[in-house]
Amino acid sequence: MHVLITGAAGMIGRKLTERLVTDRGLCGQPVEKLTLVDIVAPSRPAGFSDHVKTRAADLADPGVAEKAVSERPDVIFHLAGVVSGEAELDFDKGYRVNLDGGRALLEAVRKTGDGYKPRVVFSSSMAVYGAPLPHTIPDDFNLTPLTSYGTQKAIVELMLADYTRRGFLEGVGIRLPSIVVRPGKPNKAASGFFSGIIREPLAGQEAVLPVSEAVVHTHASPRSAVGFLIHGAELPREAIEPHVNITMPGVCCTVGEQIEALRRVAGDRVAARIRREPDPLVVRIVDGWPQRLSGKRAIELGFTFEQSFDEIIRVHIDEDIGGKFVS
Amino acid sequence: MHVLITGAAGMIGRKLTERLVTDRGLCGQPVEKLTLVDIVAPSRPAGFSDHVKTRAADLADPGVAEKAVSERPDVIFHLAGVVSGEAELDFDKGYRVNLDGGRALLEAVRKTGDGYKPRVVFSSSMAVYGAPLPHTIPDDFNLTPLTSYGTQKAIVELMLADYTRRGFLEGVGIRLPSIVVRPGKPNKAASGFFSGIIREPLAGQEAVLPVSEAVVHTHASPRSAVGFLIHGAELPREAIEPHVNITMPGVCCTVGEQIEALRRVAGDRVAARIRREPDPLVVRIVDGWPQRLSGKRAIELGFTFEQSFDEIIRVHIDEDIGGKFVS
Repeated sequence: MHVLITGAAGMIGRKLTERLVTDRGLCGQPVEKLTLVDIVAPSRPAGFSDHVKTRAADLADPGVAEKAVSERPDVIFHLAGVVSGEAELDFDKGYRVNLDGGRALLEAVRKTGDGYKPRVVFSSSMAVYGAPLPHTIPDDFNLTPLTSYGTQKAIVELMLADYTRRGFLEGVGIRLPSIVVRPGKPNKAASGFFSGIIREPLAGQEAVLPVSEAVVHTHASPRSAVGFLIHGAELPREAIEPHVNITMPGVCCTVGEQIEALRRVAGDRVAARIRREPDPLVVRIVDGWPQRLSGKRAIELGFTFEQSFDEIIRVHIDEDIGGKFVS
Repeated sequence: MHVLITGAAGMIGRKLTERLVTDRGLCGQPVEKLTLVDIVAPSRPAGFSDHVKTRAADLADPGVAEKAVSERPDVIFHLAGVVSGEAELDFDKGYRVNLDGGRALLEAVRKTGDGYKPRVVFSSSMAVYGAPLPHTIPDDFNLTPLTSYGTQKAIVELMLADYTRRGFLEGVGIRLPSIVVRPGKPNKAASGFFSGIIREPLAGQEAVLPVSEAVVHTHASPRSAVGFLIHGAELPREAIEPHVNITMPGVCCTVGEQIEALRRVAGDRVAARIRREPDPLVVRIVDGWPQRLSGKRAIELGFTFEQSFDEIIRVHIDEDIGGKFVS
């Protein structure tokens, strides 16, 4: 089993790589070869003595996608992309990386031909949805993204479905909810506070909450995100087609409930490190985002996720900060 | 007012050109200049002594889209594209013409900059929907096209919405229902029989019906299609954004009801010229198509259409065959 991961240096890419190395298998077969591609060189996974290739390259550049698939990976996890904020700030870069890069990968697979038909698992996003939205978004809801990022994700989803239908590959689009708690430093994404209000207080630092505690959102841990991708790679075709893009479930809760969970898991002193400082711009952006995802189809297909926000916090403590926090 | 029509040599393009020439205006202003582009040279409209440019060119070719918008048309009707059957038979051509051509046009507008912000009316299709479908498709239904054509239309819709949101242009996507009665010769489109079973009998010729009379579909006349496009050009922005792609309404009826309408309008002898000859391939294709479109939003926005299939037949008799048929 040869696995290619694009965007392998990103947070999900690294955790997926670790998981494949730990599991040593995918789809019931041993992983014998890993090809890791990203715009910066992905690090070589520890404890994996088998064949690993890492490459720093841009899929949208001529020849890169062709080279990435030239050794015919059986499963491709296509995670590469620029994030929402960057795609909004740099229009050309967003379309180039998120649309042209994705299309180049699909085209490279198609043009290989000769019976080559890999499973292609694409990390999409609930950003394909945009306001006005119903209380809970059903699986058959319209795609009306309100960001360039969401537009690019929706476009690659559509192509993935068409390439699958035409028999060029076996696509699965995994529409991720908000992934929290993101480890590492705060970033400037408008959604950053969903992680920040958990991560910084656990690290003994103050976090700023720019929106009301009444804001509702759907979350899953990075561990669940990796699980979604792997389950997407392992599902039988007949369970997926023809509608290959699947909205993932998650924990739907208010920001207030997130904070209550933090208090239960880590105590009052930790939860007190959150400072309320409303930011009208963030309030307006978050207002257009999906709140509750039904995820009904994904649940029926056996995708698993946390059942409470407490669990999501515990995953972060276990997986990212060595089981300890600053109480 | 300068109007650009891409795909101007096609059936809808020709009828739209005629209508603009007859009306002599659009959006309450006189049409002073027409630029007509298609892959074959569009004919110059009769009775329009003002400035008309016609050009045979492919929008996906370098420089063509830039040239088409170089004189800053105020309204662009983007109708160019290859039809469903062709996009399915020739994968590369479909993506090149329908996706790359459309994108090139949007990009040419964006790169003009300098305050240029035309209204761009895009003829999309109900092919953006695909089975399984509800009894009546609501305006907020998922985009799950089951053809490459529908995929390409959905992608350009998404880009149109994003380019509009970013302020590069004022997009309106008009999702057309099935347009009947198409004048001219029978074509090989799977949907061809919807027109054929009306057109051929009225011309004294036999028509083949390849599906059951129970098949339900939503129809509008070419005259209504042109009306949809013009209304799309004239609607105020605030009525359209942010969801700029609008599903049109039409006459929902069974094939049996189409035939009954033909009998009422043209008599038993005409209706008797339809031969039932089921074609399993066509039956299967048609089975995946949308049946009833709600069109609620479009109706609220004032888009007008026929109220019966009888009316659709009469439009064909009046407009395309000189008011007479072979009884």
